[in-house]
Amino acid sequence: MARAGRRPRRDRAGIGLAQPPFKRLRNPFPPFEILSADQIEAIHAASLQVLAEIGVNFLLPEARAILAAAGAEVEPAGARVRFDPAFVEERIRTAPGVFTLHARNPERTTRIGADWINFAVVGSAPNVSDLDGGRRMGNFADYCNLIKLGHSLNIAHLIGGYPVEPVDLPPATRHLDAVAAMARYADRNLYGYALGAVRIRDAIEITRIARGVSHAQLLAEPSLFTVVNANSPLQYDGPMLEGVIEMARHNQPIVITPFTLAGAMAPITVAGALVQQNAEALAGIAFAQCVNPGCPVVYGGFTSNVDMRTGAPAFGTPEYAKATLIGGQLARRYRLPYRASNVTASNAPDAQAAYESEMSIWACALAHCNLVKHGLGWLEGGLCASYEKFILDAEMLQMMAAFLEPLATDADALALDAIREVGPGSHFFQAAHTLARYEHAFYTPLLSDWRNFETWTEDGALDATRRAHRIWQALLAEYEEPPMDPGVAEELDAFVARRKEEGGAPG
Amino acid sequence: MARAGRRPRRDRAGIGLAQPPFKRLRNPFPPFEILSADQIEAIHAASLQVLAEIGVNFLLPEARAILAAAGAEVEPAGARVRFDPAFVEERIRTAPGVFTLHARNPERTTRIGADWINFAVVGSAPNVSDLDGGRRMGNFADYCNLIKLGHSLNIAHLIGGYPVEPVDLPPATRHLDAVAAMARYADRNLYGYALGAVRIRDAIEITRIARGVSHAQLLAEPSLFTVVNANSPLQYDGPMLEGVIEMARHNQPIVITPFTLAGAMAPITVAGALVQQNAEALAGIAFAQCVNPGCPVVYGGFTSNVDMRTGAPAFGTPEYAKATLIGGQLARRYRLPYRASNVTASNAPDAQAAYESEMSIWACALAHCNLVKHGLGWLEGGLCASYEKFILDAEMLQMMAAFLEPLATDADALALDAIREVGPGSHFFQAAHTLARYEHAFYTPLLSDWRNFETWTEDGALDATRRAHRIWQALLAEYEEPPMDPGVAEELDAFVARRKEEGGAPG
Repeated sequence: MARAGRRPRRDRAGIGLAQPPFKRLRNPFPPFEILSADQIEAIHAASLQVLAEIGVNFLLPEARAILAAAGAEVEPAGARVRFDPAFVEERIRTAPGVFTLHARNPERTTRIGADWINFAVVGSAPNVSDLDGGRRMGNFADYCNLIKLGHSLNIAHLIGGYPVEPVDLPPATRHLDAVAAMARYADRNLYGYALGAVRIRDAIEITRIARGVSHAQLLAEPSLFTVVNANSPLQYDGPMLEGVIEMARHNQPIVITPFTLAGAMAPITVAGALVQQNAEALAGIAFAQCVNPGCPVVYGGFTSNVDMRTGAPAFGTPEYAKATLIGGQLARRYRLPYRASNVTASNAPDAQAAYESEMSIWACALAHCNLVKHGLGWLEGGLCASYEKFILDAEMLQMMAAFLEPLATDADALALDAIREVGPGSHFFQAAHTLARYEHAFYTPLLSDWRNFETWTEDGALDATRRAHRIWQALLAEYEEPPMDPGVAEELDAFVARRKEEGGAPG
Repeated sequence: MARAGRRPRRDRAGIGLAQPPFKRLRNPFPPFEILSADQIEAIHAASLQVLAEIGVNFLLPEARAILAAAGAEVEPAGARVRFDPAFVEERIRTAPGVFTLHARNPERTTRIGADWINFAVVGSAPNVSDLDGGRRMGNFADYCNLIKLGHSLNIAHLIGGYPVEPVDLPPATRHLDAVAAMARYADRNLYGYALGAVRIRDAIEITRIARGVSHAQLLAEPSLFTVVNANSPLQYDGPMLEGVIEMARHNQPIVITPFTLAGAMAPITVAGALVQQNAEALAGIAFAQCVNPGCPVVYGGFTSNVDMRTGAPAFGTPEYAKATLIGGQLARRYRLPYRASNVTASNAPDAQAAYESEMSIWACALAHCNLVKHGLGWLEGGLCASYEKFILDAEMLQMMAAFLEPLATDADALALDAIREVGPGSHFFQAAHTLARYEHAFYTPLLSDWRNFETWTEDGALDATRRAHRIWQALLAEYEEPPMDPGVAEELDAFVARRKEEGGAPG
């Protein structure tokens, strides 16, 4: 495992365990504007028209009461809420453009918004797979392993949910064990699911305990995040809205993410799906700001398309890349942090998984995405978390991070002296300029094998997926639990035990 | 195989043979400027200083005579030529910014330069591999198969060299059989190797015959291209320079490509390697323009880095992506067409091959690369042409081509009526807006499998590499030789036979 320090890339403890140190990543390049400002305005205007004319269903009476009190137009007999354009623009304006997400290890605290880019571990997969064990239902043992893998990889800036659903834990108390394990096995931020108010309140308390801070400090320092999906088209359900209310009141970040699959839950055109995404996102963000003006929110984009022959969702497609880029333009228009994802529909951690993920990763980077959900380990359109994909993703994200390092063009980098020293028809292997730099000149891979064919063949001819298999095994073998104050650990255990006794979050 | 027409994506004749029709591709987005204008000027200025102070070795006396006559400073006793900055700027100015590359099928004629982007079949691999036959030395049977695959795939705009070296053909007459097979089995442009004047002259004549045009028409219509590599650092060898002279005199395009591996044949810094690349490229282009002012040339970039532990070249790295983007900025500064490549160092057509290629493909697209060499089939840093990688690449390039299609944002695309029709909490599968568009709404993959895990497993659980294996076999089984006028075929055979009798290009 890499330690922070002067020569992190040389800390090799076996195959492919070299990795750059943990680093808060900044995108130094101008964002890629795939649409013109006029086109972005057209999407913006259409989405405001949707909110004013058609509106959005808010299925929680408490949410409708909050919105009515704030001045939105709530249908007397139903769930429908309509929004005046000025109301929307005014409400979303109170959301911060950038905020700090605190980790229990302060060195892992990150910034969400502006030019910062963060990669999160896979979240919410119902299944899990690896080359040895095949595909199986989510369970707590794999859950803990994947949290540990996230902790071990410096490119995993964030925990982004339950990496797999631990279905072997009872539903009423699952969140207690799951969030506590997140706190124990990794030193990053925490994540809670917006499945009603009780679970979120428990997650907030676990976060407070794990960080060893007061309630007041936690309120001032966002440390736990959640994703709230619209029940697209144009609807937010009750448990999710309860989560929004609890999170907003505690000043913890909410990532509002419509799930707008073009052709299924959204119009079949990418532009139309984005109109709907934007309407849903703005409605959710405006609602959170009504609950607690100034609370941290993230504009989430998850517009992809379906295979129209089968209805199956497709990910990492050209349409997904475009939608991700346009989502970034919309989020920038509102000066909001932006979330997108590293996605693939592949059933195996293979070449398809790699190229669909690369389509996503490039789109995220060019879009100036601030929070890349499902950064490591997502497979099968989210139906499976894969150990090998986790390592493939780590390599792809490390490469993108290296790409985002600014390039030196000072006199030393231009190397005129070296070119003079070597002259025509020779080579640079022994040049002073080379010898002074060779250890740190280039990105060192975690997974890629650059040896020649003969050496690679003699060493077993392992393809990238099989090498990934060896790497995650070695990382787990070397894993060390991050230190936690014994008093904190005790308080954490006691809280979980007490809440279990109380029955957790039944129903 | 896809026919041009209204429903090309539905022309399925088996697994994954749907493909979009052949199309001249244009990049509608602004190029990605990874360096500032000042940084580009610093590289430009340093490279002109290299040309003025250090100079470049031209190992062919005839080339030095041409340069001396044009006003370059040729060292009396050696091979060294130095260039005044004004001389370089003036000479490269005569090169066209965009030109037409004619194919024997006029529908396959393409444009090189400006915003056009073209993908070429792999060139010059010494080995070839597929899942059935494993890895073997290049040979004429595989050569012909790979040309046929290129012809079969609409995303392969160009033939980019011998896909594998047919080492079972005698060296003196190999070029005759190889270029004639290129002419027969595909309907694209042709390619000749700049290995002395004779081989180029033979390739030019085969091109003229295959196109059925006069010498004068061929001179007016570039139809054959070649790549000339600098023998980096700062040297051009004799046979290559003979090739430049012959190609330039016949007004056929020359892609001048320094092979500047940072840390080996170029400085270890990316900026330094680009200074050298730029110096070598400008020297080669200026030379070609001295031979025949106005002849078509392409600015080639091939700057990557080596693994400093082993000296092995690495491809598709973060450094390669940066160098490719900066190369595009330099080429645009000179208003020259730009060549880069789709590269990987992977030994297998696996996930590494996919993500390294995607790093390259995205860099090429963002750089506004006009000629993407090794677009389909390159593996092992160019030491092997892979049938399966050919299909992986076809999918990745098709996806990039779909990404480069502009997105509609007119009222119809914004889909307000559809959103109104469906309303909250429903779905769009049956909406009129959906039904009118579902057949052509989205990119349809060649290789990607979007079926659910269960269906995919029942169908054999083939990963992308094994599916690629089935696809190339199906494409070759369906291959039909493009029609050629019997008179042309006869003339072609007669020319090859006569030149073989004469001994070809001995020595």
